[in-house]
Amino acid sequence: MSWRELDPLFAPSGIVVVGASANPDKLGSVMARALGASRVPVSLVNSQNPASGLHASIESAVGSTDAPIDLAVLCVPASATAEVLRDSARNGIRAALVCAGGFAEAGGPGREFGAAVDAAVLDTGIRMLGPNTSGFFVPRRRLRASFVPGVSEVKPGSVAIVAASGGINHVLAFKLQRAGVGVSLGVGLGAASDVGAPDVLDYLAHDDSTKAVLLHIESVTHGEALLRAVRELARLKPVVALVVGRNDVAEFAASHTGSLATSWRTTRDLLSQAGAVIVDDEDDLVTAGTVLSQLRAEPSAALGVGLVTGQAGPGLIIADRITGAGLELPRLASSTIATLATLLPPLTFQANPVDTGRPGPGFPAVLATVAADPSIGIVAAYALTEPVLDLPAAVHAAGIDASVPVIVGIDGPLGELESAMESAREHGVAAVAGPSALATAAIAVAADARARHLASFSADRLASGGPAEAVVVPAGGFDEIAAKGLLDSIGIATPGRRRCHDRDAAQAALAELGGPVAVKLVDASVLHKSDIGGVVLGVTTSAELDTALDALIRSGAREFLVEQMAPKGVDLIVAARRDPVFGPTVVLGMGGVEAELLADVAIRTVPVHERMTDAMIDDLITGELLRGFRNGPKVDVAALTGVFNRLGALLCASPGISEIEINPLRLTGAGLIALDAVVIAQEAQ
Amino acid sequence: MSWRELDPLFAPSGIVVVGASANPDKLGSVMARALGASRVPVSLVNSQNPASGLHASIESAVGSTDAPIDLAVLCVPASATAEVLRDSARNGIRAALVCAGGFAEAGGPGREFGAAVDAAVLDTGIRMLGPNTSGFFVPRRRLRASFVPGVSEVKPGSVAIVAASGGINHVLAFKLQRAGVGVSLGVGLGAASDVGAPDVLDYLAHDDSTKAVLLHIESVTHGEALLRAVRELARLKPVVALVVGRNDVAEFAASHTGSLATSWRTTRDLLSQAGAVIVDDEDDLVTAGTVLSQLRAEPSAALGVGLVTGQAGPGLIIADRITGAGLELPRLASSTIATLATLLPPLTFQANPVDTGRPGPGFPAVLATVAADPSIGIVAAYALTEPVLDLPAAVHAAGIDASVPVIVGIDGPLGELESAMESAREHGVAAVAGPSALATAAIAVAADARARHLASFSADRLASGGPAEAVVVPAGGFDEIAAKGLLDSIGIATPGRRRCHDRDAAQAALAELGGPVAVKLVDASVLHKSDIGGVVLGVTTSAELDTALDALIRSGAREFLVEQMAPKGVDLIVAARRDPVFGPTVVLGMGGVEAELLADVAIRTVPVHERMTDAMIDDLITGELLRGFRNGPKVDVAALTGVFNRLGALLCASPGISEIEINPLRLTGAGLIALDAVVIAQEAQ
Repeated sequence: MSWRELDPLFAPSGIVVVGASANPDKLGSVMARALGASRVPVSLVNSQNPASGLHASIESAVGSTDAPIDLAVLCVPASATAEVLRDSARNGIRAALVCAGGFAEAGGPGREFGAAVDAAVLDTGIRMLGPNTSGFFVPRRRLRASFVPGVSEVKPGSVAIVAASGGINHVLAFKLQRAGVGVSLGVGLGAASDVGAPDVLDYLAHDDSTKAVLLHIESVTHGEALLRAVRELARLKPVVALVVGRNDVAEFAASHTGSLATSWRTTRDLLSQAGAVIVDDEDDLVTAGTVLSQLRAEPSAALGVGLVTGQAGPGLIIADRITGAGLELPRLASSTIATLATLLPPLTFQANPVDTGRPGPGFPAVLATVAADPSIGIVAAYALTEPVLDLPAAVHAAGIDASVPVIVGIDGPLGELESAMESAREHGVAAVAGPSALATAAIAVAADARARHLASFSADRLASGGPAEAVVVPAGGFDEIAAKGLLDSIGIATPGRRRCHDRDAAQAALAELGGPVAVKLVDASVLHKSDIGGVVLGVTTSAELDTALDALIRSGAREFLVEQMAPKGVDLIVAARRDPVFGPTVVLGMGGVEAELLADVAIRTVPVHERMTDAMIDDLITGELLRGFRNGPKVDVAALTGVFNRLGALLCASPGISEIEINPLRLTGAGLIALDAVVIAQEAQ
Repeated sequence: MSWRELDPLFAPSGIVVVGASANPDKLGSVMARALGASRVPVSLVNSQNPASGLHASIESAVGSTDAPIDLAVLCVPASATAEVLRDSARNGIRAALVCAGGFAEAGGPGREFGAAVDAAVLDTGIRMLGPNTSGFFVPRRRLRASFVPGVSEVKPGSVAIVAASGGINHVLAFKLQRAGVGVSLGVGLGAASDVGAPDVLDYLAHDDSTKAVLLHIESVTHGEALLRAVRELARLKPVVALVVGRNDVAEFAASHTGSLATSWRTTRDLLSQAGAVIVDDEDDLVTAGTVLSQLRAEPSAALGVGLVTGQAGPGLIIADRITGAGLELPRLASSTIATLATLLPPLTFQANPVDTGRPGPGFPAVLATVAADPSIGIVAAYALTEPVLDLPAAVHAAGIDASVPVIVGIDGPLGELESAMESAREHGVAAVAGPSALATAAIAVAADARARHLASFSADRLASGGPAEAVVVPAGGFDEIAAKGLLDSIGIATPGRRRCHDRDAAQAALAELGGPVAVKLVDASVLHKSDIGGVVLGVTTSAELDTALDALIRSGAREFLVEQMAPKGVDLIVAARRDPVFGPTVVLGMGGVEAELLADVAIRTVPVHERMTDAMIDDLITGELLRGFRNGPKVDVAALTGVFNRLGALLCASPGISEIEINPLRLTGAGLIALDAVVIAQEAQ
């Protein structure tokens, strides 16, 4: 589909409100009043008109205006919606907003109403926003399809909102309004049966008035379409995303959005991989989006932040938070420090953070000096408002090249802060209130720069060595030996091993492989061999092997695996999973129940470039364990990338496989070796 | 000391500004102008007066006013400060504010100036705020000892600020001012050579106009005094604390505050144990402090939150965040749900969260119904502003008993939000802007209620079974056997073991203890026995023991430990540490390098009550592992409390010991057993 299909929705020539009640308190009436402010002709059709019926009314409304009516706003009950959509389409209307709830999410007869609406959309090709949304608004057109009167206060601007929920669309718009920031387009998607986030993101890619996009996600239906849309949009303008649902609020969420088929972590990681800046709450969403609508840094793996502060206390809060986000405040070059020493009193700290003491007339020179340091990619400047200092004007006066963006953080009493923000707007300087917001903004700009840096390394094909054809899971599944054979076949190292049907074969295997070996029960139906005494480790001698086989036979073993013991190392978990929403993904985590409880995992779609593998390790709290922690082994990033892409290729080629998990994949001095693996078949659809 | 000693500082009868320059841009001149607004007589003494000298000037200033001058505000250089303090004290002045920096933190001659100031304070008994602070303010007295002119905008109110940094004192005051909240006292402590946070907290306990205290901590000098002051104050009014320095910003921090002798985690945990509500940034500090200045919930281990929301999207954000903080949104009783069904349209979710749809006239009844549910201890209500709804008025109209406090969250365009906040003030309703702030406020109220609940279980003595007298660390330290013997002596279980000097003794020990045993090299000078092959596990037979002894002898062993192998279980780390700032503490963490990287530990001062041990386990991300995770063993909380208090008693009784670490303390089906222990001697002071 073309993004132009949303023009009738967001830039209509004429609008008809269907269900515009005569009762001023009814939603239809509220909606009609809100739309009345627009520059577009609005016709009203009262669904209570018994004489003509809706069909005739819509026809007559369309026939009676000069401007073509291309948007229908439906304030009718769920039961009437499908028919009104068909009527609208018959009369040449190409887009519709459906506000009512009571469809599939309500269950009961709502399911039928929902199915009827879907059929109407499919049959007619009308584009529908909703159902179950409080609408959208385009302030520069005074086009306000919203029940909330306060929307008239939202000013035109360059930040777009794409919210899963109509309520959050309004929350964000009002937060922006209170911060003096304007909106280009605000959309609440509601149930998103037709128009979804990918459609709106594609539309915004072509909307010149939009400079940054706030994306609010509750659940995802078309995962691959969403990632594609974010990827394409983030190339052009910053996308900042808030994903709700970290914790278990599933029952309430399902009542609102339908069930969550994927995980919060997967959604966050994959949106980030696609180029979005991920934030934790709606406050950070607004702060990050506002600043990113004004500036972007150069693509960079790790943007160096220069922090200039008028007060040490707030500077510590900013530095603490920036450092905690994994960013660096690089120590300034000695030549920079020498220059700063000529500009600042001797009692302050000048190596970065640069503590200026109360900012004076030399402030622009200090900023310019820090910005010129080769290690600095962005400058964050903080000060309390003071009569002697107009901080945004000072930033402007510093004349710093746009390649090193500057963000200003300010605190002061209400009036002084407002004056400073006004000065920031006049001077085209990005400014936020407070130390933590300044840190949030700098972290977001750095995340955007990192995402664009990573996007420049495309991994456009899966590694060679993947299977030539689909792997089929046998009836009864893969046992450990077969699963490891599968890994061998795609070039992932496993320990030397023999499948043994009796004692003699086991003794021969020990002689051949050399000790120590592990001896295990083989049975595809046993998932946790250790729990039933099905694993004996460290068997070296023939006598020890006999003892071990006795024990395994007592545990019910009829087949044995005799396998070389791997050297010590760091145990990882690597899996390739077919996410029900996003498709094939790979997962990296640490072994051990602590890492599991922490859910310390990094998730990506395949193929993965080596730089992205590096980023995955950086994203893990326990990632240090792979970087030679305490003289331990260092991971070969290329080799780990190979494991990801080979597993990914296998999954992509084999529709019968739902998941392959290597647990543990051991990092040893001699490289990565898969010690156990499970292959899970795709359940029949 | 008595809190009344700070009366001359914060409620002076007369003030002299020393160093009040004729140059209006100089700090002394700025300070004199700011103080001029107060209702207290202010005398100015110019340090540049060559004819009389400072001494004569102060004497003359004190002699020339009717009101006694009891506060001196010093705007003189570091070098002159000590002498002016002595002069002030000689003239009957009992308190001083020292703004200058350039003392110990600057090094060089600053150290001498600092020592001279300390001596002056000690000799004269004058109470000094500073050095290196931008002062304090008491808005209701129009008393503004600050260089920042905007302070005149800060309104009188009931929130007090005790900030390590003068800058943060102002940041917080301005944030409160912008939120329409007034301040009772705002203090920046600066270097805190004399007046520190404990002094000011004690003063605030007696200040009736203060209803809640915001505490900002960068470093702590007198740890036990701080905890005592927080403990006493939190009984009377809520204390909300922000501790800066999670991440390594040590070099900059040291330049500002002096070095950090304790850790960020220790400070946070111990302040929380003492009764403070801990927050993560200055925004949450203001939100939590503002709401807690208006209400406190009943003491409760886990306050049940009832969430009533007009819009589902913001409701999801609030529920997600509240759940993530470990709080519950209890499912409402069926009778409550039945009542709600009569009040609400059928399409909404009503079990908690309660989604009302657009709030209508029935909103007060909905709130009252939720508040009356027996599982609900606090109600959080959220809605967008609407012409038809005055949310604070609706809360007021609901007439809910104060034992179930209600917090309101509102969003809307600037004017409407301001009207709603004004209505909240009129109706005495606690209100914040935005879903995340509402969640933050509810979490803070619950944390305060939990702290008061825990404080009601006092552990007023260390467990019996502690040592009768001080344990002395022998020259060369405790080896493993001696360390375990120490644990035995205070009633902490260890595996059966024998110290063996030769093979025969080892064989006898194996026969006596029964296999399998662990055989270890014994040498107090070897910290990591495993690394040098000094440990052999799972020895069962006499032949295996011979092989093991051969190996240990090759590794240099001359003495052996033969010890029963412990059953499998969950490995913890428990330590008692003499924190250099806070004194004896106990630490609980999980074994394993992942938990270590995560720094997933809980820290408390001793003695610890069982309920506090429970809270420690709850605070660990990996605490589930002690609660019977996946059919594993469950910890006996009383037994773990006993370990804490016995170790604590040992540490308190033994000044020669700096730390005892049991690593691992294994949780088995048969209880807790110490598998290894290290005792570290206190270094000579």
